[in-house]
Amino acid sequence: MNIHGKSIIAGRVVEAQGPEFRAFDPAAGAPLGPAFHEASAGQVDDALGAAASACASYRAAPPEARAGFLEAAATEIESLGDALLERCRMETGLPLGRLQGERARTCAQLRLFAALAREGSWVDARIDRALPDRRPQPRPDLRRMLQPLGPVAVFGASNFPLAFSVAGGDTASALAAGCPVVAKAHPAHPGTSELVGGALTRAAASQGLPPGVFSLLNGGAAVGRAIVVHPLLSAVGFTGSRAAGRALFEAACARPEPIPVFAEMSSVNPLLILPGALSERGAAIAEGLAASVTLGSGQFCTKPGLIFVQKGDGTDGFLARLAGALAAQPPAPMLTPGIAGAFRAGRERAMALGGVRALPGSGPEASAVAVSAADFLRTPEMAAEVFGPFALVVIADSPEQVAACLRSLEGQLTATLHAAPSDLGGATPLLAEIERKAGRLVMNGFPTGVEVCPAMHHGGPYPATTDARFTSVGTAAILRFARPICYQGFPAELLPEALRDGNPRGLLRLVDGKPTREPIG
Amino acid sequence: MNIHGKSIIAGRVVEAQGPEFRAFDPAAGAPLGPAFHEASAGQVDDALGAAASACASYRAAPPEARAGFLEAAATEIESLGDALLERCRMETGLPLGRLQGERARTCAQLRLFAALAREGSWVDARIDRALPDRRPQPRPDLRRMLQPLGPVAVFGASNFPLAFSVAGGDTASALAAGCPVVAKAHPAHPGTSELVGGALTRAAASQGLPPGVFSLLNGGAAVGRAIVVHPLLSAVGFTGSRAAGRALFEAACARPEPIPVFAEMSSVNPLLILPGALSERGAAIAEGLAASVTLGSGQFCTKPGLIFVQKGDGTDGFLARLAGALAAQPPAPMLTPGIAGAFRAGRERAMALGGVRALPGSGPEASAVAVSAADFLRTPEMAAEVFGPFALVVIADSPEQVAACLRSLEGQLTATLHAAPSDLGGATPLLAEIERKAGRLVMNGFPTGVEVCPAMHHGGPYPATTDARFTSVGTAAILRFARPICYQGFPAELLPEALRDGNPRGLLRLVDGKPTREPIG
Repeated sequence: MNIHGKSIIAGRVVEAQGPEFRAFDPAAGAPLGPAFHEASAGQVDDALGAAASACASYRAAPPEARAGFLEAAATEIESLGDALLERCRMETGLPLGRLQGERARTCAQLRLFAALAREGSWVDARIDRALPDRRPQPRPDLRRMLQPLGPVAVFGASNFPLAFSVAGGDTASALAAGCPVVAKAHPAHPGTSELVGGALTRAAASQGLPPGVFSLLNGGAAVGRAIVVHPLLSAVGFTGSRAAGRALFEAACARPEPIPVFAEMSSVNPLLILPGALSERGAAIAEGLAASVTLGSGQFCTKPGLIFVQKGDGTDGFLARLAGALAAQPPAPMLTPGIAGAFRAGRERAMALGGVRALPGSGPEASAVAVSAADFLRTPEMAAEVFGPFALVVIADSPEQVAACLRSLEGQLTATLHAAPSDLGGATPLLAEIERKAGRLVMNGFPTGVEVCPAMHHGGPYPATTDARFTSVGTAAILRFARPICYQGFPAELLPEALRDGNPRGLLRLVDGKPTREPIG
Repeated sequence: MNIHGKSIIAGRVVEAQGPEFRAFDPAAGAPLGPAFHEASAGQVDDALGAAASACASYRAAPPEARAGFLEAAATEIESLGDALLERCRMETGLPLGRLQGERARTCAQLRLFAALAREGSWVDARIDRALPDRRPQPRPDLRRMLQPLGPVAVFGASNFPLAFSVAGGDTASALAAGCPVVAKAHPAHPGTSELVGGALTRAAASQGLPPGVFSLLNGGAAVGRAIVVHPLLSAVGFTGSRAAGRALFEAACARPEPIPVFAEMSSVNPLLILPGALSERGAAIAEGLAASVTLGSGQFCTKPGLIFVQKGDGTDGFLARLAGALAAQPPAPMLTPGIAGAFRAGRERAMALGGVRALPGSGPEASAVAVSAADFLRTPEMAAEVFGPFALVVIADSPEQVAACLRSLEGQLTATLHAAPSDLGGATPLLAEIERKAGRLVMNGFPTGVEVCPAMHHGGPYPATTDARFTSVGTAAILRFARPICYQGFPAELLPEALRDGNPRGLLRLVDGKPTREPIG
């Protein structure tokens, strides 16, 4: 499959202007062809200008057009066939089986958001009818619904080259909301990004949409910053490192007109194993945990990186079993040389902290180490994320000490509790702690694996994300990219269809405070 | 009624520690007794500590307790009787009739949020049941709902001493969401704030709630900043000036853990009069506009400050009529000497800008002036808010010139269109412009007067607010102070009641993607 290495702006492959860079094959340890070109400042401006120009007509396009666009995008991505997966495998080192699954998820997400847009009730229509005879003041007719925010920037993630990148969840939810998207390809998988960007471009054209509804820009941090500070941008979706996410957040807050940044950044995902669970099924938990810690070479935002157990008869056996299960996991390359280097440095840093010791029978390349809760509480750096296949097991003397450790943590995407029925009576204080810290609480499972559905919440208090009120996975993700508009005293013909009396699409609306799908009158 | 002049922290009147200040009677032009004392740094810390300590039990309190608290607060405020209104009148110069209406609104808001909390569906419960047989992966049981964010700071507004102050919409919505509130009294009406703070304190005690659920601190910008940067704070509600709101927003973004700030700041609320409307009912529009511009001495965030008309036969007559109607409005003092001074300076600045001229028959103290659209487009300062009874009438040569003026504006809380049936055919491009700029669009009415109901949206793109996605008026205001938590694989007894199969409160929930009030199973 031919890869041109250039940005795609509003339907057109644009000329090479910015600095050149190449993808890298982490399994082969060698650069990949062809050369890619970063977008120039003028090209960033072109993409945002085209997106802003597309806003009005894309916003006015019927829900069917948005849905058709997303469905066509899924079909186009599937039509890329094995060439997409093969390029992606080369650029990321991720195995084909994983990438097949990720492609399926990506296309399922696009179709889920298509269905959400087509059904239409997500706009949260609310109608309070006029009360002309009310005293002391009559009430005017008031009708409000969610409308698209405007152009959205989507930053591709290194660790999900399909599902959280150019046509990933951020793009699908922004397009479903009616917002044009300017995607920045992650420079670690620019070929994958280009192929997917081409699919989105063809999908937009197939629905007769204005081409500015989607652009794909190549580049690194400087291009990213130029996008975020561009005056025509309305919101940002980002998945990546804490430093990069915070920098974009601060740039967005410092704009003359600040805009929301939904950055999903950093989480160590504490996992608590209560004594009953350890005793009943410690071996099974060790096996499951080893698989979860090393899934995708540990390069998941939901990887359980901090394991809390209480000292007891079964603790040593559990640690040995965990060490064995981790050692049995097949080695795999990391996504990029930079990530691999940061991982090695992070692991070395963690292993050098006071009180950290190897698990029984494991060596300096181990995927897990242990420390006492007392040492953990003395050393805040131990709670830092090590992105990669690595976990710290914290051994506590009491449930109170576990609770103290939890209190010391920053915000998290997830927190997990392994508990036997006999543990549940005493679990309430621990549950209260993890409810304060995390966005998703997992019982007797593992946090890796994020279901895409209405009830999912993939978000959490800072630094897990910059805005704990929103999810980046599941249908509620669309709410990031819309704002209410209220229409007061409007004649029917000037109201958006969703707010007209007839309710032709049968939306679930709140009419005079009561939810109904019925028309009015 | 005795006024002690001290802060109230978690149920107790605390000792005087910070600097002293006094309220001021703007009608009499004289300071008022008694002396008030700003909260000290230690007292700010005490209030936030108490709020954080109250979080867990207030969050766990049943909806009935939250609702009872809000209803008791309304009753306690009503029990303060005329003494509250009289103190408020002295501190603000606002007439008693207005304050009676504002008290009624304040209590109605408290009861509306009580009803919202009691009904309970606002938590947006979503349940996706387990699919153990799904291939390739089973789906776990996933249940999510909104939970309170944590302690919320509420900044009292100068211009709504009751409805947007200590027990105003921000407080009512935060308490309904389950968040403790630390209110900062506006220093222009500290006695009013103290009386209302006492009412809230008694209401909390009457429901057996932890006293930290509400505190009231006295102070100015320094105390406000200390509250916003306090590590135990979770969110901020603010109504006030653009400079103060932006400063708090930036302080909140720069925290180690940034928190959301809902600042409602600055809006000139453009009002467009189309030619058919001007010709059909120019006189009535002039009368209504004069009343709206001068309501509450023009000290409304929704005051229409920019009026757009097209040059035509009726324009001069309309301007003369408007000048006459404005001159006929009774004079009234402004809220504070500072606001009065800023108003005079702002009006002088506006009147000195190139091309600005008096309306026929009015003088240098006029409440409105006129300018050509060409001059307006040349002079961006003309679009700045002048807080007080003042409006700028912009006279355009064409609808295109009106659209160009609209495009030049910043974000707005409201935008208003006066249109006759004959105007509507050509109104679409103008409507598209105001939809981009404003949160509420008013047809053939006036933007002052903000209904408190589910369909209201009181918010808008920056600088109208710092977050266009949320409203500060109406039931949706509760969504500012909550975040989703997802419970995966939880046993029924550890789930919050709202997520249990039995749905004992009959909440409207999304179960497997379908809205229903039915229990499961």
